[in-house]
Order: sequence, then structure tokens, then C-alpha cells
Amino acid sequence: MLNFTKWHGLGNDFVLMELSPDAIPQEKIAGFVHRVCHRHFGVGGDGLVFVYCDDKGFINMRIFNADGTEPEMCGNAIRCVAKYLYTKGLVKDTSFPIQTKAGIKVPEVIIKDGEVTAVKVDMGEPILESEQIPFKGERGSKVIDQEIQVDGKKILITAVSMGNPHCILFIDERVDQFPVHILGPQLECHRLFPAKTNVEFVEVLDRNRVSVRVWERGVGETLACGTGACAVAVGGSLCGHLDPSVEVNLSGGRLYVEWGSNNHVYMTGPAVEVFQGRCRVERWEVGS
Amino acid sequence: MLNFTKWHGLGNDFVLMELSPDAIPQEKIAGFVHRVCHRHFGVGGDGLVFVYCDDKGFINMRIFNADGTEPEMCGNAIRCVAKYLYTKGLVKDTSFPIQTKAGIKVPEVIIKDGEVTAVKVDMGEPILESEQIPFKGERGSKVIDQEIQVDGKKILITAVSMGNPHCILFIDERVDQFPVHILGPQLECHRLFPAKTNVEFVEVLDRNRVSVRVWERGVGETLACGTGACAVAVGGSLCGHLDPSVEVNLSGGRLYVEWGSNNHVYMTGPAVEVFQGRCRVERWEVGS
Repeated sequence: MLNFTKWHGLGNDFVLMELSPDAIPQEKIAGFVHRVCHRHFGVGGDGLVFVYCDDKGFINMRIFNADGTEPEMCGNAIRCVAKYLYTKGLVKDTSFPIQTKAGIKVPEVIIKDGEVTAVKVDMGEPILESEQIPFKGERGSKVIDQEIQVDGKKILITAVSMGNPHCILFIDERVDQFPVHILGPQLECHRLFPAKTNVEFVEVLDRNRVSVRVWERGVGETLACGTGACAVAVGGSLCGHLDPSVEVNLSGGRLYVEWGSNNHVYMTGPAVEVFQGRCRVERWEVGS
Repeated sequence: MLNFTKWHGLGNDFVLMELSPDAIPQEKIAGFVHRVCHRHFGVGGDGLVFVYCDDKGFINMRIFNADGTEPEMCGNAIRCVAKYLYTKGLVKDTSFPIQTKAGIKVPEVIIKDGEVTAVKVDMGEPILESEQIPFKGERGSKVIDQEIQVDGKKILITAVSMGNPHCILFIDERVDQFPVHILGPQLECHRLFPAKTNVEFVEVLDRNRVSVRVWERGVGETLACGTGACAVAVGGSLCGHLDPSVEVNLSGGRLYVEWGSNNHVYMTGPAVEVFQGRCRVERWEVGS
């Protein structure tokens, strides 16, 4: 039997398996993830998170989107992983390092009355240099309020990587009425983002508060995106719209993001275990 | 901890709990079902099925749609319930009665090499009298190829109840290109169906084979509907399009339906357990 738990961070939901993706033949991972994440035939989820110890005893996480693609990191998922590790007793400290494809991250579980109420994650430093985002811009330049063409129209974007690329739009309209489903896929696959991109549509409420809708690369619109919330705080600060400490209201709930004076971005938010599950391995046709 | 299993019949998926809905305060059931069936914050499913023994030791099932409404019956769900009861050893015979809101149904598990490969369900007799469907027609009349007005246009429908109402349209176009999302909700809430209705869009391939898309009352388009497949076979026979034995191809897979000479409708199809799960009861805020 294959054991798993189902989690969500602000409605961004994951199947979590204590398993190394290396246990699955490389060419079968995408199909496995797709079947597990299918909402009618499988467990259902925006993504599948593998949590495991490597040869050196270091905790690793790798996340795959429902379509089988592998993003570098996911802020909502790492909060779930941190709470999972702590509540299961697999780590003793309230703060501990996790190896991700976007480098080592150090989450901290926030405890109140013996319960984990939230998880604060040091999301590391934002990446602003266009080539590293990656964005096809002038070498060494940043992408702040830059005009680009989308479907014949000019729009201003700001691009930030938090280990994965984000394209941020500050809009004047109400975000709940914005045509996210039209502009989202156009920007996701825009030629200026060679690795594609996540897209955040941001309505500024005041200098410390925003409402955001997220179009996730490879997924579509989601209820929330942790790295996206961080990118919004950084991008908003760079553009002069926001202070470094921001409450980010997403469709699925609320995150608190702080861009610290040490250039690290800290994100605090909830992580919820929905249920524990188990199923027969052959169900996912993953055998070799 | 609350135990459950997750099932699907042709992708029409259910959370199954061995629990009486009477254990939950009446006014809290809809909210409970909604939370459990939520695909991001809950277990996820088209519906929640309660399976339990009543005071007389009789097996009961009751199903609720994700929106909290309670349909009389669901053909895909009862196959899952039958396989669940048999494989769990809760019944010994391969055929046994189950009390539903649409009366007593008698499923039969089909065994091959010790495995349940399919479940055949005696779905009982179709209800054709308009008042009983219910359809606002002439008292005592049947609804066969009857012209009705939808959004100013005239269309022909056939109405059949299999314990729950079905509105059947035989279309000349390819069903995969048909505007199900426009006509589906219009017919579901049509004034001639006082209890609303499920809607089946049917492309006849030959006298024993159809392709069908289903708009389920209270749910929207689904991958398959068991009572809908039965209603299609009956309606197609009444209209002269089909023989009494029909292979029904739905978005989620295939069912075999036979309208027997005893006037009973028999449906044979798969039932799949996806996983077993458990979660904390308080998670669903169902306490009194």
C-alpha cells in the first residue's frame, strides 16, 4: 500500500508522499503525477509533493504540478511540508532546512498552545536580474514597470524570480473582475519568458495590503501561490506601490510577506492537513 | 477519526462513508457534504454517499451531490456501494438488496478470477407517466419526442424517470461539439420540470450504440451518470432510435444497459476504489 496525506495552503492543494521521485522510473513520473492528481480518477490535487531524505540524511522536497511539469519551488507546498515534518516528529526544532530545487529553504513552524498555527518560511533572496529570471531583456537589467506587447496591446509588467519566474501586473480595476483567464495564458507563454512564467494580477488596497489573483504556470488559475505572494511584495516595493511588509489577500486566503533588510523574503501563512490516505500502488501503474 | 473511501464509476466520483446521515444534525448535512466534496479544501468528489444499516438490519444508501442537494438515486454510486459491501465482506451473496430513496435496488457483483470486474444493477422499472417524472404535461401522458420551447427555440425532448428525472435529447450533430454548457442549465431549470432535471445529450451511432454527454442536476456536466444511461436506453427505445440493449459511451467510459422484457432496466459497468482515507471529524465542523 502507498501512504499519502492530502494538504492545502490557502486552497492550493497537494498530495504529499514520503517517497523519493527517484524510486519511480524517470519517464514514468509525469504520468504518475498526472494520474494521482486527477480530480475524478485519482486523489486530486494541484500538485504532488515528494518528501524524502537523501543519502546524507538531508531533508528534500520536490514538487510536480498536476500536468507533470516540475517547478523549482512552491511556497504553499513548503509550509505544508514543514508542518508535516514537525507534527510527525521527523524534526525536533521549530526551524529547519529543506533542500528544494530552488536551493535550501528554512521554514519555521509557529506554535501556539501546542498547535502549529502557521508556518514562516525564509524564501531566500529575490532574483531580479533579467537573464536569471529568466526574461529576455538587456543583460544585467531589472524588469520593473517594463512595457511589453501582448496580443497587440501594450502593458506594464514587473518580473521577479523567487526560484521560479513571476510576471506581476499592477491593475487599476478590481481584480475579481479582471480577465485573468485571457491575459493569464498569454503572459504564461509569452516569448519574453523562455521558461514560461507564473502571472500575478495585483490590486493595491493600500501600501501594506493587496488583493491578488494568480495564474500558475502549467496549472491555470489557482486559489493561491506562495512564491507569487512574495514576488508581489518585492515587485510592489520596487515599483514604489508597496512598503516592504505586505498582507497579501488571495482567492484562497491570506499570507503575510516581509522583504527584510537582509534582502531575504519571509512568508507566513497557514498549512492544513485535510486527510490521510492509502491506496494500492498498482493503481497508479508505476511499476517497471 | 472519520474513515472513508474514495470511489469512481466512470469518473463520476464519490466519497463513501459508513455512516448514517441521521448522525448529523439535519440542518448541517448540506454544509458537511459541501465541505467534504470541495476539491481544494476537502476530500473532493461529485457527491458523498452514506452507507449504513437501519434498525431492521437492512442496508441503506443515501447520496448527496456536492452542492448539498439529495438526488433520489445514482447508478454510478450504487455500483461502487455494491462492490464496497461485497469486497469488504459485509454481504455474502453476489446479489443483494439495497434500500435507496428511489426504492429497493438489487445489484449483482460480476466476479472473474476472484475479482469484482463489474456490477450489474437492476435499476427497476422506468417511470414514464409525466406527473410522476415529474413533468408538467397532460395527466397520464408520456413525454416522447415532445416539442418544448427553450430560450425561444423549439426542441424535441423525451422525459424518463429512473427514480430521478431525465430529459433526453437526440441530436444530429457530434455530441463532443454540442453546446452542453448552454442548453444543459437551461433544461435543468426549465419550468416544465418542477423538480428540475438531469439532461442527456445523445448521438446515436447505431441501434445498439450511443455517445452521451450528461448535465447533472445540481452538479453541471459530469463524466458519466448511471441512471442517465438507463434513461437514454429507455427513451431511445420509446422513440424508435434504439434496440432495448445498448452500449452507452460516456465521457468517463462505457456502460451496458438492457431494458428487459420484464420492464426492468439492467445496467452493467465498472466501480473502482481509488483510495482509503481518514481524517479528524472536527475538520468538517459537524459537531452539534
